[in-house]
Amino acid sequence: MNVLGVIVEYNPFHYGHLYHLDAAKKKTNADVTVAVMSGSFLQRGEPAITSKWTRTKMALKGGVDLVIELPYIYSTQKAEIFSDAAVSLLDELKVNQLCFGSESGNIDHFIHTVDVVSSRNNEIDERVRDVVKTGVSYPRAFSIAYREVFDNTNESILDLGKPNNILGYHYVKSIKKRGSKMTPCTITREQANYHDTEVTKHQKIASATAIRKLLIENNFSIEAVEQYVPPSTLTLLRDEIHTGTHFLHWEHYFPFIRYKLLTTPTSELRAMYECEEGIEHRLIKMMKDVNSFQSFMEAVKTKRYTWTRIQRLILHILTNTSKGFMEQHCHPLSPQYIRLLGMTNKGRNYLSSIKKDLRVPLVSRASEFQHEVLQKDIQVSQLHTLPYEDETLQQEFKSVPIQYD
Amino acid sequence: MNVLGVIVEYNPFHYGHLYHLDAAKKKTNADVTVAVMSGSFLQRGEPAITSKWTRTKMALKGGVDLVIELPYIYSTQKAEIFSDAAVSLLDELKVNQLCFGSESGNIDHFIHTVDVVSSRNNEIDERVRDVVKTGVSYPRAFSIAYREVFDNTNESILDLGKPNNILGYHYVKSIKKRGSKMTPCTITREQANYHDTEVTKHQKIASATAIRKLLIENNFSIEAVEQYVPPSTLTLLRDEIHTGTHFLHWEHYFPFIRYKLLTTPTSELRAMYECEEGIEHRLIKMMKDVNSFQSFMEAVKTKRYTWTRIQRLILHILTNTSKGFMEQHCHPLSPQYIRLLGMTNKGRNYLSSIKKDLRVPLVSRASEFQHEVLQKDIQVSQLHTLPYEDETLQQEFKSVPIQYD
Repeated sequence: MNVLGVIVEYNPFHYGHLYHLDAAKKKTNADVTVAVMSGSFLQRGEPAITSKWTRTKMALKGGVDLVIELPYIYSTQKAEIFSDAAVSLLDELKVNQLCFGSESGNIDHFIHTVDVVSSRNNEIDERVRDVVKTGVSYPRAFSIAYREVFDNTNESILDLGKPNNILGYHYVKSIKKRGSKMTPCTITREQANYHDTEVTKHQKIASATAIRKLLIENNFSIEAVEQYVPPSTLTLLRDEIHTGTHFLHWEHYFPFIRYKLLTTPTSELRAMYECEEGIEHRLIKMMKDVNSFQSFMEAVKTKRYTWTRIQRLILHILTNTSKGFMEQHCHPLSPQYIRLLGMTNKGRNYLSSIKKDLRVPLVSRASEFQHEVLQKDIQVSQLHTLPYEDETLQQEFKSVPIQYD
Repeated sequence: MNVLGVIVEYNPFHYGHLYHLDAAKKKTNADVTVAVMSGSFLQRGEPAITSKWTRTKMALKGGVDLVIELPYIYSTQKAEIFSDAAVSLLDELKVNQLCFGSESGNIDHFIHTVDVVSSRNNEIDERVRDVVKTGVSYPRAFSIAYREVFDNTNESILDLGKPNNILGYHYVKSIKKRGSKMTPCTITREQANYHDTEVTKHQKIASATAIRKLLIENNFSIEAVEQYVPPSTLTLLRDEIHTGTHFLHWEHYFPFIRYKLLTTPTSELRAMYECEEGIEHRLIKMMKDVNSFQSFMEAVKTKRYTWTRIQRLILHILTNTSKGFMEQHCHPLSPQYIRLLGMTNKGRNYLSSIKKDLRVPLVSRASEFQHEVLQKDIQVSQLHTLPYEDETLQQEFKSVPIQYD
């Protein structure tokens, strides 16, 4: 049986995702498709524009059979941890083919690069440490070190300057680390790059970043993105608006960040995950003169601290996620449970067939399973909906997996 | 020289205050009038409807010469601590006449009651403890015990069921405790009672509570309260609206309370001031199903926990004010500094004349004096203005005393 796995955010689900899904199914001759999806907050430390329930519906309508939540403590991390956790969840679900989009499109390059980098690990690490000392960020230092070490060799290695190549590289590395039998494969990403924020007219594929930007620029009018998302996504986005909710973005959380920084002693801020090198003082100082998230970020950002790094730090401060909590619970290669967000009939049948072999608990209803990692997911999802002032906090606790025929 | 002291909240300043002020000046033949005023949050644990700066202007326009801030750690406390701190600040400022409004209007009754109660203290305390055990609130228990102990005596004592009598009783007691030479006097409150929420038409005097209620009910249209406040207050309220701010009330802080309860571990909530008997669990539980401050309060309230007590507790949670902080800094009989909010020429001259004899630092600008109690005042005032999303946090830090001719 061919069980295809994909690692997704679907923020929102668009034609690029649909294209990837269809191509991956064809390539792997998939009998069933499992997606591990980030919950309320995403890898770059951003809030999702809609709830995970709406994005689950998008995924099911788009052709995924089973949607599993990537817990907050893994979904908001640098590529390595994010990847280890997502791959491990798919592995627990007996996925045997992992297919990801990349700029490269050549899976042999990924496998080869992982092997070669691991054999020259110490050399690269040492160089990274030196480069970081000159004041540049870690991702940039890695990219520099990597290029320096390999530039004068005959090795045919990946361009790790490209964001999807980096993620793919980590997926392949995670499979190896976990000792999984999963087979990786990759599909060349069409047109839009991950970081592209512009869309070209008369084409169907735009990045999710570009689509979100269009939504914001057009005052969240759905028509602005009509051509880039399938009709099912369009309907779901329209439903969101009709129920009185609105698309969420960082500015909605700015009052809470300001409140949190105003009322939290620096010693407590320092205990938050990813709070290093006294940056808490910088955050407090810069908050004094700004009145929006955008201006706050611009004030805090430096060459050394990338936008993403600061965004994740602020998110962990907002959610009160401490170093101690992460130390205790963050074990990306050993998932604590599998939380089901949604399934089709085919997905349900597949789940029944493997249920007795699952090594970790399968959770359908948040209230039926007690675990601090799940508790954190419930808490951050309640926090995610705080800007909907008229709603109560009960929603997330009562939610059950979406089921489609 | 006759230096009159008054203890006020002016939320907002109205004709009742003006009447009291004029009568007190006449009665004491005052040369100068000093007001100790609660800052951003008030004795019953509520946010002031406007900033303390606007209320300071109201006070100066109304005839006060010197306005001093009662720090947060004293202004949001039960009558005893509130009174000790306010009286002590006036005493430090060489006030020699304290005049307060009361239902009784007879100062001898106050002095006598303080003497008698203090002589039968143990008896009352014991009875209060017993009554509290039956599940009623402390203020009610005190009132019951007090009546029981004195009902069968021939003592002519005060009716401590009346809110202004209670405050006055504590003022007189504080003077005694501090060993101050200040002379207390009282003026009968005209018409409106402290707790009155209704106003009668064709009269000029309404309680501040009634005025705030009118403002809320009339969607903050100033016209609704025109007849109850002097023209100077009216102009200041109008100016507030013209500068784009709005009147503040508890509902504006509800999102922050919800956020705080959602992201704070119970162990940390338990450490907050006035958090006793496991009420933190009740707060968290009741927050789940509500979507407004009003409905939250109604859900939390019991016979044992009065509205005011819960309101103060929530306020201390909101401002992150711990038991440890209060233990360290709350010394109501020994003020740490005197913070000047505003003065007339007469007030400035008076201040100059006593400056060399002041035993505690006089603070004009928040940035010029380092003290944790003042730091707390700055923090809660910044928090008070958080609902003004377009403003930055700098305002409070940069403010200087209001000066009028």
